[in-house]
Amino acid sequence: MALDPALLPLHRRGHAPPPGLAVPAIAPTADTLLDHRLAQRLACAPDGQRQFGRLQDLALQLARIQNGPDHAFDTLTLTAPQLLVFAADHGIADQVQGPDDHRRTQARVLALLAGAAPTSALARLHGVAVTVVDAGLATPVTPPARSPVGWQARKIGFGTRNLLLGPAMSVAQASAALQAGMDVVRQTPGNVVAVAGVGEASSACAGLLLSRLCGVPVADACARAPREAAGFDEADDTERLDALTNAALRHRALHNATDVLAAMGGFDLAMMAGAMLQAASERRIVLVDGFAAGAAALVARALSPAVTDYLVFSHRAPDPGHRLMLIHLQADPLLDLGLTAHQGTGALLAWPLVRAAQALLDL
Amino acid sequence: MALDPALLPLHRRGHAPPPGLAVPAIAPTADTLLDHRLAQRLACAPDGQRQFGRLQDLALQLARIQNGPDHAFDTLTLTAPQLLVFAADHGIADQVQGPDDHRRTQARVLALLAGAAPTSALARLHGVAVTVVDAGLATPVTPPARSPVGWQARKIGFGTRNLLLGPAMSVAQASAALQAGMDVVRQTPGNVVAVAGVGEASSACAGLLLSRLCGVPVADACARAPREAAGFDEADDTERLDALTNAALRHRALHNATDVLAAMGGFDLAMMAGAMLQAASERRIVLVDGFAAGAAALVARALSPAVTDYLVFSHRAPDPGHRLMLIHLQADPLLDLGLTAHQGTGALLAWPLVRAAQALLDL
Repeated sequence: MALDPALLPLHRRGHAPPPGLAVPAIAPTADTLLDHRLAQRLACAPDGQRQFGRLQDLALQLARIQNGPDHAFDTLTLTAPQLLVFAADHGIADQVQGPDDHRRTQARVLALLAGAAPTSALARLHGVAVTVVDAGLATPVTPPARSPVGWQARKIGFGTRNLLLGPAMSVAQASAALQAGMDVVRQTPGNVVAVAGVGEASSACAGLLLSRLCGVPVADACARAPREAAGFDEADDTERLDALTNAALRHRALHNATDVLAAMGGFDLAMMAGAMLQAASERRIVLVDGFAAGAAALVARALSPAVTDYLVFSHRAPDPGHRLMLIHLQADPLLDLGLTAHQGTGALLAWPLVRAAQALLDL
Repeated sequence: MALDPALLPLHRRGHAPPPGLAVPAIAPTADTLLDHRLAQRLACAPDGQRQFGRLQDLALQLARIQNGPDHAFDTLTLTAPQLLVFAADHGIADQVQGPDDHRRTQARVLALLAGAAPTSALARLHGVAVTVVDAGLATPVTPPARSPVGWQARKIGFGTRNLLLGPAMSVAQASAALQAGMDVVRQTPGNVVAVAGVGEASSACAGLLLSRLCGVPVADACARAPREAAGFDEADDTERLDALTNAALRHRALHNATDVLAAMGGFDLAMMAGAMLQAASERRIVLVDGFAAGAAALVARALSPAVTDYLVFSHRAPDPGHRLMLIHLQADPLLDLGLTAHQGTGALLAWPLVRAAQALLDL
């Protein structure tokens, strides 16, 4: 007897994409013949033990991705790695993050475009090209004339609406953002795409999506990291969690991932999900940065479960929500350095490990 | 009333170096003025939170190391990074690791020298120069004519004696090995030295040193990693732990770190300890690879506690002993990837994070 789908947690049910949106086909990468062939190559040492732990798993995943139906995997090629940073503002930001939220997002985007942010420094160090995508900033941003960083204007709106009062986006907007994310990747060179977000309160939205899609209580999904929490007033934090719990209650009747995304997501999250789906359909390696990118991965997985075969989770942030999210994604991230920076820094720090996995495969 | 030194755990007591050996002076790096100055620089983001977690701690440590008494720290310079792999055989190897131990060590060293080992691949990837030091191999090794890897013959003996029957080395041999390690670093260029070991049963010796110096039961200090243990016969493993426990009992009367090193260490461990002491005295950054290098760090700390200011612990292996050792060293390693490979691979995988910390300091 088949289980009533309504009894399954939301993320295990099939989800229809928004009307009119074609989600590209994504092939699962599992291939036991390849696994068997690589097991010998990856044994490496004279005594043939599994010496490289997580790095060996990574090498296998990367090889599977590049083991297309039309050609058998031989060596891993990594060409023109790209970091896409999706920037957007969120209607709830002033309520959960305090005033001046738009200006803080803007300052971060301008620092990124000026090449002054840690993201730029790490990207230079590792030779990764960076593009900032305006997914829906509330303030106008003009990139400087000679920016070391690419810029794509894909604005769906000037920030989302306040999801405490109604859906953050219409389904049409969410669909447009998913489509824009796909288009961005289609026009991006290379076979490795790192996906990251920047924008105040995107982590609150990420927590709400985690809560709804995976059945995690809001108080856990949206809790602040222990170290970060020390800097905040406890009463403020209770108020913040109350507001987010109310938001989750307001949208509790939604069951389709697209509707959940529209109601509690953001332009950045939707666009990141679209980018991941497109990249996976083209058999590119996808590096997932932080909490917001992880929430986009949850949405992408709901629309096309095979997408997870292509996702490399770069790091585990100290936020309880991120730790829970990675468990629900069955992901074992490469780094655990207590990073709360996001904006692609986690993905950039994990990039040398991808290259190291390549070196192991080349032995 | 002062505490009776005999009541302190061994690693907290003062330890005399072997007679005739001069341990170079090592200056502690703590400097509150520098910390204060860098706190602002490392805040990085417009909102000035501690966003880079462990990486920020690393950046601060590296800055402190290069903040000499004669010049204030400004930018971090990393010149000519070197990996030193100390190779030696151990008299107990055939009893705890099975027969053919010398041949396995030899095969590993030859693979390293031929540039065919994972170590060589990662070193090429990151531009780190590798030198293999023969600290005490039991078999003769001739490096190939055009080896990509340096070679230093510093053999103290053809493998140590069986420490189940008596001390592995004489104190004179341990002293000579410490001195040789210092000499090797003195002749090594650059200001970053990664220290690693290769040799069958060096982890058994490392576990015994941990057990004696930090008061960890042998069964924990020398336990196999869960995943690794699956491949071994349980009866064999009990026999192995019984033998190691007997060895620890045989040498239980020793209280000086030098005597403990001579009795239960090895040429590689002693030479690594000497290398760390010398590198720290020259204010070089020291990357510590795996379990054996960690045991050498315990010995170096016993001889000169300030050495730990200069040590960057690269990764945490799944072996219970290594996890305990890092806690006793109060070390928070950069990576936790389930690596059991050693031979410098952990240090090489952590190297890009050192470069990332440099990039953060340069912002």
